[in-house]
Amino acid sequence: MRDLLPEETRRRRALARGILDHFALHGYDLVTSPAFELAEVLEKGLGALDPGDVLRFVEPESGEVCALRPDMTPQIARMVATRLAAEPRPIRLCYEGTIVRRRQGRAKKHRQIPQAGVELYGAPSPEGDLEALRLLASVTRVVGLGSFVIDLGHALIARALIDAVPSPLDVEVTDALAQKDASRLVVLLSGREAAAVPRRVAEALVALPELAGGAEDRPGEEILARAEKLFAGTGAEGPLRELRALWETARRPRTAPAGAPSDGLADVLRLDLGEVRGFAYYTGPIFHVLAPGPGEPIGAGGRYDDLLGRFGLPMQAVGFGLHLDAIARAREASGVRDERPIRVLVAADPPGEALVLALRARGIAAARGQGPDVLRYAQAHHYSHVVVEGSEGAVRIVPTDEPEAAVEVAADTGAERIAETVGFPAAGARARGG
Amino acid sequence: MRDLLPEETRRRRALARGILDHFALHGYDLVTSPAFELAEVLEKGLGALDPGDVLRFVEPESGEVCALRPDMTPQIARMVATRLAAEPRPIRLCYEGTIVRRRQGRAKKHRQIPQAGVELYGAPSPEGDLEALRLLASVTRVVGLGSFVIDLGHALIARALIDAVPSPLDVEVTDALAQKDASRLVVLLSGREAAAVPRRVAEALVALPELAGGAEDRPGEEILARAEKLFAGTGAEGPLRELRALWETARRPRTAPAGAPSDGLADVLRLDLGEVRGFAYYTGPIFHVLAPGPGEPIGAGGRYDDLLGRFGLPMQAVGFGLHLDAIARAREASGVRDERPIRVLVAADPPGEALVLALRARGIAAARGQGPDVLRYAQAHHYSHVVVEGSEGAVRIVPTDEPEAAVEVAADTGAERIAETVGFPAAGARARGG
Repeated sequence: MRDLLPEETRRRRALARGILDHFALHGYDLVTSPAFELAEVLEKGLGALDPGDVLRFVEPESGEVCALRPDMTPQIARMVATRLAAEPRPIRLCYEGTIVRRRQGRAKKHRQIPQAGVELYGAPSPEGDLEALRLLASVTRVVGLGSFVIDLGHALIARALIDAVPSPLDVEVTDALAQKDASRLVVLLSGREAAAVPRRVAEALVALPELAGGAEDRPGEEILARAEKLFAGTGAEGPLRELRALWETARRPRTAPAGAPSDGLADVLRLDLGEVRGFAYYTGPIFHVLAPGPGEPIGAGGRYDDLLGRFGLPMQAVGFGLHLDAIARAREASGVRDERPIRVLVAADPPGEALVLALRARGIAAARGQGPDVLRYAQAHHYSHVVVEGSEGAVRIVPTDEPEAAVEVAADTGAERIAETVGFPAAGARARGG
Repeated sequence: MRDLLPEETRRRRALARGILDHFALHGYDLVTSPAFELAEVLEKGLGALDPGDVLRFVEPESGEVCALRPDMTPQIARMVATRLAAEPRPIRLCYEGTIVRRRQGRAKKHRQIPQAGVELYGAPSPEGDLEALRLLASVTRVVGLGSFVIDLGHALIARALIDAVPSPLDVEVTDALAQKDASRLVVLLSGREAAAVPRRVAEALVALPELAGGAEDRPGEEILARAEKLFAGTGAEGPLRELRALWETARRPRTAPAGAPSDGLADVLRLDLGEVRGFAYYTGPIFHVLAPGPGEPIGAGGRYDDLLGRFGLPMQAVGFGLHLDAIARAREASGVRDERPIRVLVAADPPGEALVLALRARGIAAARGQGPDVLRYAQAHHYSHVVVEGSEGAVRIVPTDEPEAAVEVAADTGAERIAETVGFPAAGARARGG
């Protein structure tokens, strides 16, 4: 429920465009899904989402319950299970759009959250996981974030261990894991209600919050070795083996060809074996991208091989979603600056309309301006240059963010030549000298 | 409530991108508005829309009535009247997004209608009208439509005449005008209930449906001259004078510089003085763009100087909206073909991953493929080329839409060189010869 004004929209649009172009470069086809549809369809794939997060309404004609989409993954799963069911696999799709999360508690507004993401269907583990992780790393670099990490876990590690905990203790244990609260886990798992929990499982659960890291100070190998000992004889052994295989392949160094962003994971991949976010939904590796600034992950994903089955067509699936607002905050925090487009307000006449047309023909945004406050107008509307009358009938090209750096060109220069001068500031500087 | 699959999304996205880039070139800043908000805000600016077209729902927390936006113009008016109120004028904004019209009668689904448009605030008539009309003409050419007309009318012509018709006859007269039903107008305006209607007004109303044209067979000048006689002494005289001034200025020939689409109106502008669509909303010139195919206007707009006042900040305004679905149908009908992007599936290894990376570094979409059905896979997923093993270990580059035109390059050619060959099909043909 928030408007985006021009500057914010321009940045958001450039960001979304960069992300979608990058997905397209990797063979991911953009699809579009409706902003709302029958709640029962959307709720088939809710996964980690609290049903209270969904904004539902009764459709006035039919009385059916609709929902504003709280997530696009279930919609795309429905598409794949129906109209795209006959496509040969793997199927690579991507999306971009706004999802809605219902306001809760004291929040004043529902959140309309812009997202973009990919879904890779019919690709087995670990190849599919690796493709998703590499794409996640390269797209994060493409949007200009140099400093980020990807936390890698496996949904079935925590799930296998918690499966051995009787109800209702399992809910409390899950909650303590989500908080990474090791001391509460100790208390919970040494109480009478935990008597039936195998000792190895209890020890593994208590240790889970610490099984995270993977940078120089705590090598991933050390974490994996410790986990192997802890998980021996529990249901977490198999998932750990899968995770280790993925970790080792993903960490292999890679070189990107010149001009392409690296999709290397060696420097950015970390381990987080105690991750439980969405672990009821994911069926394999899970991951989160973290960057300084937003205070929440800028993206998250994993493998969810059970989802398509809920739509009647069991199929492997892995994917991730990016939170565009969080990425925008991370870019701000790390000082990434968007290049300001050249945009010219033409007040002098001549060259007048002829210059406006000549600029547009070169792909440079331009409009006519007038009045005594033309510089202020140009600044307020984010024009990069304003063209005004100069001394002795010359034409003056004024950069709006640095008016004292204006250059003058002769009045009889002609629109084409002036358009060139504005379009190439260096040439403009030369024009002043010459 | 409709999914767009990959090919349709690609076309739709290219179309929207082309339109928004063109608006940006003319100094129009993109803004973003929420998909739903309080119904009372949206309904302030409903204008021509039937309130039954609006899909409302009760917000679960507050009990407030929200509506899925049936139009973006009122939202942008709200933005201008609040957060942009202090901006120097004119203010040029544009938008793109989906609006929702509630299903009615036997329609099975609500319509989620993709639109894009511009709003020009604080620009007087006729300069502002002319700017909007020129932009409408050039953007229609930019999307590839060569054959179109713009019907120009003035909202106050019909309104001034109908104001002299007593209620409830005025409703029936409006309806007959909307149907361009001259014989029904004769019946309505010669009945007893029409006794109070001035004779000149009745004659003008009956003639309105015929006051349309402006191509060679019926010059606009002839229509305007006839209207001047008919409207003399009625409230339609003033609006007609405004319309004539705009018509004459707009018809002046213009030459666009090389490389830019023409914004000329001389060939495409027509007159339609009896237009009543949205005449309760518009306050000046109104216009519709028509092209063969969709059976409905591909765009419509006009001047609505009263709208901003409803949001507390009276301001002149003119703008138009384009219906992207209708434009897509018009492009199909006129045989406009989108260029198919180059997109390569690499099955041969070597060059394998090295070629994929080299292609992406050149901005060419690429992915790995495998299996016996790799050509069928590539065709199903709209790859333009597939790279397979050729004879004696050579690498074979196969265009998916013309497999017999495949070329082979030596196995030791190297990924960089093969990427060049795929990227430039002509060079590929030479490679085969050499």
